Amino acid sequence: MSRQATPLGRPRDPELDEKLMTAALLEYAQLGWGAFTMQGVARRAGVGKSALYLRWSTKEELLLDSVESVALTLSVNVDTGSLTGDLTALATALLEHFLDPIGWATLRITIDVTAEFTDLRPFQQRIVKALRSAATGAFTRAVERGEMATGTAHEPLIESLFGAVLMHTLSRSHEEREHARTHPGEHVAPLVDVIVRSARPPKK
Amino acid sequence: MSRQATPLGRPRDPELDEKLMTAALLEYAQLGWGAFTMQGVARRAGVGKSALYLRWSTKEELLLDSVESVALTLSVNVDTGSLTGDLTALATALLEHFLDPIGWATLRITIDVTAEFTDLRPFQQRIVKALRSAATGAFTRAVERGEMATGTAHEPLIESLFGAVLMHTLSRSHEEREHARTHPGEHVAPLVDVIVRSARPPKK
Repeated sequence: MSRQATPLGRPRDPELDEKLMTAALLEYAQLGWGAFTMQGVARRAGVGKSALYLRWSTKEELLLDSVESVALTLSVNVDTGSLTGDLTALATALLEHFLDPIGWATLRITIDVTAEFTDLRPFQQRIVKALRSAATGAFTRAVERGEMATGTAHEPLIESLFGAVLMHTLSRSHEEREHARTHPGEHVAPLVDVIVRSARPPKK
Repeated sequence: MSRQATPLGRPRDPELDEKLMTAALLEYAQLGWGAFTMQGVARRAGVGKSALYLRWSTKEELLLDSVESVALTLSVNVDTGSLTGDLTALATALLEHFLDPIGWATLRITIDVTAEFTDLRPFQQRIVKALRSAATGAFTRAVERGEMATGTAHEPLIESLFGAVLMHTLSRSHEEREHARTHPGEHVAPLVDVIVRSARPPKK
């Protein structure tokens, strides 16, 4: 979609793509938007500028794809047999994401973009898409199992769970973040519980 | 606490304090941590550097106080007679906070600080304090009214509500953010509902 078709039908190299996107996120994390250049990303990745421009025509496109590629790794959709289990898998992936420098860089880009640019549509759409796809499977299965009332709106539950993990990360000290890294389950359990309790159907 | 006692017992000027802290947040929003200086804040506020140094000995102290003073405006504690009403007041204040350039700058500082510094304790403690004090009153009254089971943990509910509002702001387009500015109630209602449903005591 947003990625340019490679000229002359040259095949993509997914490993190189990923290396370049990682370099872009790290470059951004260090310099911010003001000093972020294609040149700098190429230098960091140890490639020529042309290798970048073959793939992305602007630095905005490069950042968009980089943010999306990281966001999509959050689309954990495993069937553990219970809503609590499924959401725990999801929330754990998100917690690890926010505890990782690359994940944190992604968040910073999103936040800077929200502050700086007026047309945020592509960024917002990609974030929303990643969040939705991550939880839709879990909620659909929960309705089938009777753990959740039919017709319950997904989006507020998704925003609450993902937002809670973000806020949890933001409001913890360095030591507590280290503890979360080694014991993610203890940290996400109370947050998952809020959502599971909220989603449960009224007792007959 | 962190603010220096003014030398010679000179009385504080709360209006000037606020003007300086606002200048600090705007300066940070524009330049980020790397280019943030006391000199720049003084210039923006139209005061001499000495006026700043009389109040804060370092730029870290200045930022800490600025973030805290904004965070404390979120401590909305009104008794509307229902948990839904109380949390709506709170969530609306938070939504307006995230839609305001000063509030957004505060968030960016917190996020940059989490990425850059190892000793985050003062920042984290002040955020946690503001969040807790904002919701504790609402939850205490809800337990008294029987809308919430005794012994329900407050913190996961607070993280969920505040995080949901943040995530909602982050994942919305420019137009949707404008809509939220004029119709905050429509935007916070589904998020408040998640928390109220989660907190309700089990049916007898």
